[in-house]
Amino acid sequence: MKNVAIIGGTGYGAIELIRLIHSHEYMHVKKIISHSQHGEELAQVYPHLIDFIEGPMEELEIESLKEDVDIVFFATPAGVSKKLIPKLEDSTVQCIDLSGDLRISSQEQYENWYGKEAAPQHTLDNAVYGLPEIYKDQVKKAKVLSNPGCFPTSAILGLIPALSHKIIAANPIIIDGKTGVSGAGRTPSSMTHFSETNDNVKPYKLGKHQHIPEIDQYLSVMAGESISATFTTHLIPMTRGLICTMYSQLTKDISTDEVIKLYQSYYQSHPFVRIRKEGDFPATKEVYGSNFCDIGLHVDQRTNQLIIVSVIDNLVKGAAGQAIQNVNLMNGWDEQHGLSTIPMYP
Amino acid sequence: MKNVAIIGGTGYGAIELIRLIHSHEYMHVKKIISHSQHGEELAQVYPHLIDFIEGPMEELEIESLKEDVDIVFFATPAGVSKKLIPKLEDSTVQCIDLSGDLRISSQEQYENWYGKEAAPQHTLDNAVYGLPEIYKDQVKKAKVLSNPGCFPTSAILGLIPALSHKIIAANPIIIDGKTGVSGAGRTPSSMTHFSETNDNVKPYKLGKHQHIPEIDQYLSVMAGESISATFTTHLIPMTRGLICTMYSQLTKDISTDEVIKLYQSYYQSHPFVRIRKEGDFPATKEVYGSNFCDIGLHVDQRTNQLIIVSVIDNLVKGAAGQAIQNVNLMNGWDEQHGLSTIPMYP
Amino acid sequence: MKNVAIIGGTGYGAIELIRLIHSHEYMHVKKIISHSQHGEELAQVYPHLIDFIEGPMEELEIESLKEDVDIVFFATPAGVSKKLIPKLEDSTVQCIDLSGDLRISSQEQYENWYGKEAAPQHTLDNAVYGLPEIYKDQVKKAKVLSNPGCFPTSAILGLIPALSHKIIAANPIIIDGKTGVSGAGRTPSSMTHFSETNDNVKPYKLGKHQHIPEIDQYLSVMAGESISATFTTHLIPMTRGLICTMYSQLTKDISTDEVIKLYQSYYQSHPFVRIRKEGDFPATKEVYGSNFCDIGLHVDQRTNQLIIVSVIDNLVKGAAGQAIQNVNLMNGWDEQHGLSTIPMYP
Amino acid sequence: MKNVAIIGGTGYGAIELIRLIHSHEYMHVKKIISHSQHGEELAQVYPHLIDFIEGPMEELEIESLKEDVDIVFFATPAGVSKKLIPKLEDSTVQCIDLSGDLRISSQEQYENWYGKEAAPQHTLDNAVYGLPEIYKDQVKKAKVLSNPGCFPTSAILGLIPALSHKIIAANPIIIDGKTGVSGAGRTPSSMTHFSETNDNVKPYKLGKHQHIPEIDQYLSVMAGESISATFTTHLIPMTRGLICTMYSQLTKDISTDEVIKLYQSYYQSHPFVRIRKEGDFPATKEVYGSNFCDIGLHVDQRTNQLIIVSVIDNLVKGAAGQAIQNVNLMNGWDEQHGLSTIPMYP
Repeated sequence: MKNVAIIGGTGYGAIELIRLIHSHEYMHVKKIISHSQHGEELAQVYPHLIDFIEGPMEELEIESLKEDVDIVFFATPAGVSKKLIPKLEDSTVQCIDLSGDLRISSQEQYENWYGKEAAPQHTLDNAVYGLPEIYKDQVKKAKVLSNPGCFPTSAILGLIPALSHKIIAANPIIIDGKTGVSGAGRTPSSMTHFSETNDNVKPYKLGKHQHIPEIDQYLSVMAGESISATFTTHLIPMTRGLICTMYSQLTKDISTDEVIKLYQSYYQSHPFVRIRKEGDFPATKEVYGSNFCDIGLHVDQRTNQLIIVSVIDNLVKGAAGQAIQNVNLMNGWDEQHGLSTIPMYP
Repeated sequence: MKNVAIIGGTGYGAIELIRLIHSHEYMHVKKIISHSQHGEELAQVYPHLIDFIEGPMEELEIESLKEDVDIVFFATPAGVSKKLIPKLEDSTVQCIDLSGDLRISSQEQYENWYGKEAAPQHTLDNAVYGLPEIYKDQVKKAKVLSNPGCFPTSAILGLIPALSHKIIAANPIIIDGKTGVSGAGRTPSSMTHFSETNDNVKPYKLGKHQHIPEIDQYLSVMAGESISATFTTHLIPMTRGLICTMYSQLTKDISTDEVIKLYQSYYQSHPFVRIRKEGDFPATKEVYGSNFCDIGLHVDQRTNQLIIVSVIDNLVKGAAGQAIQNVNLMNGWDEQHGLSTIPMYP
Repeated sequence: MKNVAIIGGTGYGAIELIRLIHSHEYMHVKKIISHSQHGEELAQVYPHLIDFIEGPMEELEIESLKEDVDIVFFATPAGVSKKLIPKLEDSTVQCIDLSGDLRISSQEQYENWYGKEAAPQHTLDNAVYGLPEIYKDQVKKAKVLSNPGCFPTSAILGLIPALSHKIIAANPIIIDGKTGVSGAGRTPSSMTHFSETNDNVKPYKLGKHQHIPEIDQYLSVMAGESISATFTTHLIPMTRGLICTMYSQLTKDISTDEVIKLYQSYYQSHPFVRIRKEGDFPATKEVYGSNFCDIGLHVDQRTNQLIIVSVIDNLVKGAAGQAIQNVNLMNGWDEQHGLSTIPMYP
Repeated sequence: MKNVAIIGGTGYGAIELIRLIHSHEYMHVKKIISHSQHGEELAQVYPHLIDFIEGPMEELEIESLKEDVDIVFFATPAGVSKKLIPKLEDSTVQCIDLSGDLRISSQEQYENWYGKEAAPQHTLDNAVYGLPEIYKDQVKKAKVLSNPGCFPTSAILGLIPALSHKIIAANPIIIDGKTGVSGAGRTPSSMTHFSETNDNVKPYKLGKHQHIPEIDQYLSVMAGESISATFTTHLIPMTRGLICTMYSQLTKDISTDEVIKLYQSYYQSHPFVRIRKEGDFPATKEVYGSNFCDIGLHVDQRTNQLIIVSVIDNLVKGAAGQAIQNVNLMNGWDEQHGLSTIPMYP
């Protein structure tokens, strides 16, 4: 049994970690750390947790982390983990960073897109990008793990088989992203105010989203050529769920059925990716609460485009679930441990 | 390991049973039976089930049920189980009826409210009403179990401690019910059409709801006097969740704090009922996907009323979860087995 | 053509006034006054207003109000209009207060429920409560008008015919209120955060809602005896719409049909109240965007209760629309002028 | 005053026409015709219409149409108007077809995409495509008017200025469409069932949507070269609203500001198109209930793409509002008559 600390205890990432770890046999949440609300009971902030959490949230102390826990999850806003993870590098603690701090390998790029000072270069270099369907071997050996962003998870899983088999051109690639509101976190704002978000679709951060360099970086590495994808994001009146609809030019004559077979083969040993049959496209609710990424494929013969639809639950495969999948691999446990539930439907 | 059959395989009750049984170590879904869609794969109707269900849905055959399974769940519309359960009475099969067919002990009352012919009287007499917080001893010995309705579960759990301690008058009792749309099932209708249900509250079945006689019958039995509660229902633009706000006249001078202590004491050995602190009232989402019934209490001194707020997930504690809780007790398993998950929030 | 100023320009009350006054032939919005955002264009805050509003929002200046406008709408939080209206008393300006500052005739009661210092007693005494279906004659002569709260409008219109005909007992009266989120205004908070408000019903302010003394005061006056109603409120995942389901004891043997006729007669000269037929209960969306109050009635013979369902659009009949209805009467215009639109459905 | 008949009286197109015509001074709804529900009162189907509609719905009789009305709106499913409009060709009745029957000029294309027999070729040839921002002169002279589809309206208005100025390549053009559920009409189905549509995004009809040939046809005509756009559609959990996010390759070096100026100039005499400022992208709710099409523009310099966001209310500018705009032009009335309302927000 490994002891776990969660930093950023009152955010949605943290409470989803708590929910999932509760069903995990090899991990136990020992500390919940909150900068703003330490001393309070988490169940007073989140009454759904009544009877599940004992004791108050704690203040951060690096030394007690090193002594008391084996694994630290950083469910923190950008700019926090980059300062804390270097302080844990001399310990045996496994660090899982759910923020974007360690995702961009270039300090300059990070600073351009995030508008904050980057992590030390050696911390960036040591961090493993935790997309296990692509980097499973590296993840198994990781000590510092950078958990992917929600949109990059959906987009990269959807595009990589086609790119690596070079059945689509590297440019232009269009990624039209649509997300539920929980992706914006728990801090109230006019952007996420119910009265104006309900019955509405809002495009946001066009051309400015901090997931753009993350998507480009990993697509480029995996395709072996430089990719600049066009990426937009839309806020949808739903709590959970994220969908990327992606468009790219086919480089060869290929049928939908052949593309589906190629994807099935690519992901055959990856239990969390489900490839849909011809004519069947995933809806976000069909992965609700689960760690699945479901992918639908369509060759649009009129326009010679490959259309890829990729859905995840932004809080599970897009955050906490993928973090646990990574921890499972890092510790030699079954990759699916604690994550083998059926999506909640309807 | 017990083998299970689910009859009514394409309804929401059935798929919620499948979701919950998937995490249950002592049950295995052997047969999914569908009158209208046998021969089809359930995952084609419900793609979220891809990789979880093998083989097609089957046609009903009573003899093969008797041979192949230990437990049968009836997730069927009114009027089906009353015909089938009598045919299983000479076998060892445990029958769990999620429909209303066996809930009303008087044939005449059933026929008045349901507009259908009632079950045989001996079948009604043998069925145990599966509200384990009240009837745990009977449930443990049941062979035919009548699983309570969603509104009655919420209403009865909310009212019984006050009624049995006689701190409220038996009449008038007002129950204002509000439910998510999944309670109406999966058959499309103008009542549940998104465009008209979204951004709308619709009162329905005022004075006519078939849960009225069920609520009255069990409240009366448990209070030891005849109760006719006023009960209304409202359709709310949400998928899951049910809330009853209840009003009754206090018979004695008592504080909110004292009422809370009385409720905590009443439910202290019942893990699925959580009594909230003074000033804290449960929201439906705080039990989402879980088997909890959360109850908030308020003594309104201006009007000498006790206000009780009781919330459940209509598909879990209001249907499939409670069914599994009952099966756990009927088989000597831990009451919480397979049901100890944290509510999904947000 | 009367010139109008709206104070509290960035709230929902203000923008609903702007929407409705745009279709009003005898009023013109001359000034939009915002304490926090003067100097800005309202269409930058609310892009739906592009092409409809000219010039920036202004700072409040009492003297220029007196000179430049004929009518001032106060769409301000509690505690603002009580200070400003006394400063306009020596002018000819008509003041319409959409806040609660002038609704409670007792200073002590206001201070108990609102937690703020009350308006001067003579200002309270001079203000007319603007529920035109009850106080039309007084409204016609008003110079300072106190526009009713959203819940009181729905509750009082639903109860008054039965109370004034004494077909129900004055106590206990139960009012179960359910409201869309726009009633909570535009300031973001965790209460109105989309991720937690969506797919959820939240009871709030039980026993503490500031509309309680307003409801009691006017019910008591009109019934001619002291009434303390039990009133609860629930936040519903919808933007607009408000519904009160009300329960009271019948004092005589009367049928649903007779009650309906009594209500039709009571409201026969009031175009904004629509009484539904037997068995037909209004849904909130059926008055969406309109100034209607629709009322459904049911005599529950099992329990001898009269059940009343009353729905309004909280921003129209519950705020801006009723304000305009009042202004129409105060100026001798057709009561329905600018308000005769069909509800937007679906 | 012109007398109007609406055929297809119980659909959403019809009731939106009724709502809008109620505020129109030169039209009066004389007949509401329903094939399935003639003899019934429309207000029994739609209680929001109580007090607005007199008399029952009628059965269709061509001769009485010719005698009694001046304008006929066909708010009918595909396959109806193509049979009826030819029967009215020898009269003076103006025909406005809100269905897709007359939108595709090639009979073969219609039959391929709609799976039904096409209208007579001369009827197709005589019908004017009612997108007044492009075809105003033709609309003014039309007797048979084919009202555009909802997605084509949004997509074409968004793309035409860029295409006609040749600042983007004609191929590939990507149109990612997202629509509220009312676009699917009023007939209940599992696709539009609340429990499964809520909190969900569903891609549908990928590569098969019947709006594809309509978009291609008019883009090609107006661009002067053959265009095959890639078009996808997604069902969003909202009632009204439609958004197209569109992607195309820039053919020249141009800034966002320059593109905005070009669009402003293109639409300067078209009051229903609003071009947003740089960095401001329209949300669907910002045109709710109105006839506006709001367009946001972004030059994505990283990828040399022009991103266009175009939103409408699918029932207004995407159906009934545009129909009235067309009728206004056909009769020499002010183009904005009856349509100059402010969007309903929030």
